[in-house]
Amino acid sequence: MILDIINKKRLGKELTYQELDLFFNGYLKGEVADYQMSALLMAICINGMSDEETFALTKIFIDSGDVLDFSDLPGIKVDKHSTGGIGDKTTLVIVPIVAACGGTVVKMSGRGLGYTGGTIDKLESIPGYRIDLEEDEIKRQVYNIGLVVTGQTADLVPMDKVIYALRDVTSTVSSIPLIASSIMSKKIACGADKIIIDIKVGNGALIQTKEDAKKLSSLMIRIGEFYNREVRTIISDMNTPLGITIGNSLEVLEAIDVLRGKEKKNDFVNLCIELASNMVSMALRIPYAEAEMKVMESIKNKSAYKKFEEMVEAQGGKIDKIKVSNKVHFVKAPCSGEIKKINALEWGKISLHLGAGKENITDKIDYTVGIKLNKLLGDKVKKGDVLATVYYNKKLPEIKIDNIYKFE
Amino acid sequence: MILDIINKKRLGKELTYQELDLFFNGYLKGEVADYQMSALLMAICINGMSDEETFALTKIFIDSGDVLDFSDLPGIKVDKHSTGGIGDKTTLVIVPIVAACGGTVVKMSGRGLGYTGGTIDKLESIPGYRIDLEEDEIKRQVYNIGLVVTGQTADLVPMDKVIYALRDVTSTVSSIPLIASSIMSKKIACGADKIIIDIKVGNGALIQTKEDAKKLSSLMIRIGEFYNREVRTIISDMNTPLGITIGNSLEVLEAIDVLRGKEKKNDFVNLCIELASNMVSMALRIPYAEAEMKVMESIKNKSAYKKFEEMVEAQGGKIDKIKVSNKVHFVKAPCSGEIKKINALEWGKISLHLGAGKENITDKIDYTVGIKLNKLLGDKVKKGDVLATVYYNKKLPEIKIDNIYKFE
Repeated sequence: MILDIINKKRLGKELTYQELDLFFNGYLKGEVADYQMSALLMAICINGMSDEETFALTKIFIDSGDVLDFSDLPGIKVDKHSTGGIGDKTTLVIVPIVAACGGTVVKMSGRGLGYTGGTIDKLESIPGYRIDLEEDEIKRQVYNIGLVVTGQTADLVPMDKVIYALRDVTSTVSSIPLIASSIMSKKIACGADKIIIDIKVGNGALIQTKEDAKKLSSLMIRIGEFYNREVRTIISDMNTPLGITIGNSLEVLEAIDVLRGKEKKNDFVNLCIELASNMVSMALRIPYAEAEMKVMESIKNKSAYKKFEEMVEAQGGKIDKIKVSNKVHFVKAPCSGEIKKINALEWGKISLHLGAGKENITDKIDYTVGIKLNKLLGDKVKKGDVLATVYYNKKLPEIKIDNIYKFE
Repeated sequence: MILDIINKKRLGKELTYQELDLFFNGYLKGEVADYQMSALLMAICINGMSDEETFALTKIFIDSGDVLDFSDLPGIKVDKHSTGGIGDKTTLVIVPIVAACGGTVVKMSGRGLGYTGGTIDKLESIPGYRIDLEEDEIKRQVYNIGLVVTGQTADLVPMDKVIYALRDVTSTVSSIPLIASSIMSKKIACGADKIIIDIKVGNGALIQTKEDAKKLSSLMIRIGEFYNREVRTIISDMNTPLGITIGNSLEVLEAIDVLRGKEKKNDFVNLCIELASNMVSMALRIPYAEAEMKVMESIKNKSAYKKFEEMVEAQGGKIDKIKVSNKVHFVKAPCSGEIKKINALEWGKISLHLGAGKENITDKIDYTVGIKLNKLLGDKVKKGDVLATVYYNKKLPEIKIDNIYKFE
């Protein structure tokens, strides 16, 4: 039976809910071997899955673990997902904005394994900030102030964890239906009513072409329709680092600057506004333009920053205790000209070597290190100008400017 | 690197010799995991392999073990391979014929795992027949009488064994390039100069359509050209059992009858003549028609049967001691009409239940049991006529005539 299912997908045929259920749950139970699962995953990668198969797989994923229910909390719960990027601290900015505008956000974030920390790692760079709230604490906080960003408490979509680990070591990550069902199952299990998804496209990203990003986008919207969840998507560039900092404390400080309106408009600020406006539009059922006005106002009148302060305080964090290393190294322009390229991936690798990210699950993150970009894409520089400031602690990694920047 | 190789094949690109070598030998060394190999095999099954890739993989397979060298023996060494079938005892008939006509045959055969025994199991039903000849014994026998059929001595193509075992449990068996490189690597490692391959097409066979059989045929011929080995192929039907018996002793006795010219022409006799004529044509470098005349003559003048006797005697077997069970059951026609179908697979299953084959490697074969077909495809029968005789020992399995026969 197991072999018949693999064979059917090998031939490009459609699998039924029952067949997918038998195979994937059989894998969790140890009745299907790793090598059989990887053969099926490869057949799915190459031959694809129909919408019906993708909806079925999403359900099987959701049903594999706990499903959170926040329907007793007031307001429409909006959630956001990003497929990940270097310098992506949008969650820190948009959650307070949406709450300030009257939306309700229960955000469960993950730790990072890669070039920089995940949202939870970033928040932990605020001394005292608790990321291990219990379900009743989460509900109380959301009831009181309308927002929370914490780590996962419940056992959400355990199947995704084991399947993702296997995909990672068998070159079966880049399958649009598999990516879509993985993301959507997690968002639905988290209890979200409406969801915005930020699809990153670029060299080092999960999705490498705009065409694939569009396919992923429309598939996630269709999964949302099937599960009666409004889904919106944004496709954004991930070739250049997002914003002006990379590293945990530095990114929190940048987010605070954006919330306080101190940051001039750049790609990161624009993305935050677009994401937040969509979330507010969905949460309050108002047109995008109206939502955008509310978002801008929440920054201007500091209500968004106040929500951030409320959240950090409620979770025990001390904003004034955030630390950045005082050892700095200035990266200077080797020539004059306009900056034509800043390679996100290369800065990401340096961030990892600095200790801002982790290569292995057991590595410890250094919150105080990172990179601040003093000049951005399109800026005109003179030879000797400071392009970036590297905050290091133990050892300064080798920085090859030619690998990161292109001038013209 | 391993992941890059899987990814390349996932995208349908061509792998280099170095990449295939790294991956497959990495697997043998335990550096590539089962689940990674099965992912690559699935990608190969779906996206195929170019001729260059198939030649490279064949070389990697051959190089994984011993390669036999019979170049010091006189004559051109011709070998035969069959993709397997119910009642296939052609080796027993054609090897003596080819030797009688002046060809040299060093045949290493395998045991069967399935409905009936393999050639080696069949030969072991001749009491005393040794299938474990050492290399020097093989050479001496071939030098003296021109033929040998024995089990594998050396460690030939060990990679094929492990890869085949994995393919078997991951639905990655039916890939034409994988089948071709598996077969051709074994034949080349066996030291054959010229090779005839009998590709069986049918319901229960490895190859299910004539189109696939033709693709496999032309690919094996091209692999042969690359390795400077003449390859000919025959595509033959495997929906109906081959010849008139299924079971080890019974098949040896049928082969003897054919060699002695006692069997009237049927599908099996015709196939033997075609295979043997091709082998003689290649071994003696003569046209097919001339070879066929020699083959017919060798049966008529009993020289082929004499070769068979010489071989059995040289390997210690006693033909007059072959035993068939004396417990018989007659399967009678339930109605009158013409036989329109005899299901090979169904008779195969009954053969297995009788004990003529083995399901597990540790099962013991009962050489004395089997089935004799008293009526063949196309024969007209009357209700109550004996269709087949079942030779059983311990217990007669249930026989559902409607599953096996169709009348009109």
